[in-house]
Amino acid sequence: MKEFNIIERFFTGQSQPRHDVIVGVGDDCAITTVPANQALATTTDTLVSGVHFLADTAPSDIAHKAMAVNLSDLAAVGAIPAWISLALSLEDTDEDWLDEFSDTIARLCEYYSVNLIGGDTTRGPLSITITAQGFVPPGSIATRSGAQPGDLLYVTGSLGDAGAGLDILLNKLDITALTDISSEEQTAISQYLVERHHRPTPRVLSGTSLRRIISSCIDLSDGLRGDIQHIMRASSCGAIINVDALPISSQLSAAVSVEQAISYALSAGDDYELCFTLPQDNTTEFELAMHASNVSYTCIGQMTGGDQLELRLHDKPYQPTNLLTAAFEHQFGADPAHTS
Amino acid sequence: MKEFNIIERFFTGQSQPRHDVIVGVGDDCAITTVPANQALATTTDTLVSGVHFLADTAPSDIAHKAMAVNLSDLAAVGAIPAWISLALSLEDTDEDWLDEFSDTIARLCEYYSVNLIGGDTTRGPLSITITAQGFVPPGSIATRSGAQPGDLLYVTGSLGDAGAGLDILLNKLDITALTDISSEEQTAISQYLVERHHRPTPRVLSGTSLRRIISSCIDLSDGLRGDIQHIMRASSCGAIINVDALPISSQLSAAVSVEQAISYALSAGDDYELCFTLPQDNTTEFELAMHASNVSYTCIGQMTGGDQLELRLHDKPYQPTNLLTAAFEHQFGADPAHTS
Repeated sequence: MKEFNIIERFFTGQSQPRHDVIVGVGDDCAITTVPANQALATTTDTLVSGVHFLADTAPSDIAHKAMAVNLSDLAAVGAIPAWISLALSLEDTDEDWLDEFSDTIARLCEYYSVNLIGGDTTRGPLSITITAQGFVPPGSIATRSGAQPGDLLYVTGSLGDAGAGLDILLNKLDITALTDISSEEQTAISQYLVERHHRPTPRVLSGTSLRRIISSCIDLSDGLRGDIQHIMRASSCGAIINVDALPISSQLSAAVSVEQAISYALSAGDDYELCFTLPQDNTTEFELAMHASNVSYTCIGQMTGGDQLELRLHDKPYQPTNLLTAAFEHQFGADPAHTS
Repeated sequence: MKEFNIIERFFTGQSQPRHDVIVGVGDDCAITTVPANQALATTTDTLVSGVHFLADTAPSDIAHKAMAVNLSDLAAVGAIPAWISLALSLEDTDEDWLDEFSDTIARLCEYYSVNLIGGDTTRGPLSITITAQGFVPPGSIATRSGAQPGDLLYVTGSLGDAGAGLDILLNKLDITALTDISSEEQTAISQYLVERHHRPTPRVLSGTSLRRIISSCIDLSDGLRGDIQHIMRASSCGAIINVDALPISSQLSAAVSVEQAISYALSAGDDYELCFTLPQDNTTEFELAMHASNVSYTCIGQMTGGDQLELRLHDKPYQPTNLLTAAFEHQFGADPAHTS
């Protein structure tokens, strides 16, 4: 099979065509239309084998993560996903790999009503670059720069699961060493944590329902402790995080000590939950939005004046002693730099 | 230096900000606005070291080509460039390399009034993926599918120069063996051909001025003989190419035999000229548009019924005997598949 046909053979015709795609895959450019009164949100993220995922990761998990990290960036600004372009670098043309990879891309495109509008495949070490585009009303964009001192600090879902899942894959965390639970429970916990590493859930609906209410937002890719500093810098604020308030899943709680769980939640990265700030005046509106949501939200602290990040446990300064990884750095050895 | 800062340090603040960029580099997404009554054109192209450019290529030449191949795709549909996103995979953080690479990106952004709105850098084998976005009126998009039998077939500029330039770099073509010209002329010819390989000119103005007049268009990345077949297939047409009409530069004519020049022009690729079809009724309007242009246009044949490509020399069938490369395949050993 000519590589020329890879995009057309594996990645087209699998999703319901969107009416706003005038020209899709197969021409020099895709041509699309943006609704009146909507701004366009664009984000580009690359995943490299051995850097962002382990080399033996299943193609469906790689596809899931490549989609999720990009949709998560759209979610962070409150945008509704519309289209993706895929640049795929492949060592060789493995049709089984491509079948599984493309099936997952197609399934997620279908789920999020996204169309793949273009692509480029090249021969080279395995890497996946997705550019995702979506819509957001220009008046209600959740950027990193709108936080004010006094705003409450929230996160969606639970933190630290993905980091623990990675450590299970790397044999750094051994769930079978837990003697107080059954082997079935061990298996369930392990599967949950690994799944959270492989298949993060982009908080698309949270992003769109919160964008009018919150003052700033970021998605947690590199770990809360590092990512919150992007909001702090962009908004010229400090922040307090109450580490005893961090949302820890029952599975992570069962797997590790409280201190280790806090460490994962602060620093391990790859959670792809949203971290956002809420003006206290908007609390009522926020509670209404929360009520209609299937996603949990947890207040973990507050923005302050100044420029310092304070970690507190039971209202006393907290010094984490067991940081598994430095913030900003992925666990596979490289320092991916991502912005926009 | 943290790689985290690469995009912000090297790639921001160098161009005049566009008014349609609400949020640029440095947030989870870029946020932009598309003008009313304009469609959005999006294209993604990856260049991999050793596949699309020789490993010892200067960073400014790599930057030029990465920009040009994407802007050329926008030109092919008649779109005006607006924004680019850059996904850069780097072996290491070489500041001199990044200075030179980013200077050229900035210079071309300035020239084409384009803003870099986002990026992602990862550690890995050198590759550059650019996603370019631009605007085109939805009623006058030059796709591949609008050609009709009888339409005249044109190309911009001259063909084959880039292929000969590559062969000079690969020591397959030796200009110093030309005994009938001076060494100054040899140097000038060599420089011209290599420059055409390294720094193709995206035909952006041709694309926008022709889009209302022509019936189909493609940019020539893989060689005329292969690329014309995309128009033929998309438009359900055949085509005749008069090889004696192919525009050959004086430099290429001086460097190789007529037969070799035709071979480069038909098959060598990387010219990034536009190939388009013109309904004969639009000839007058076309001549007016040509008159205002600095770019040369050459009629090289005609679209036909059926589905065959016929090559003709002095109205007789022409069988090229010295095809340097098979159409569709880049010369560095891989088969890049590119669509949209």
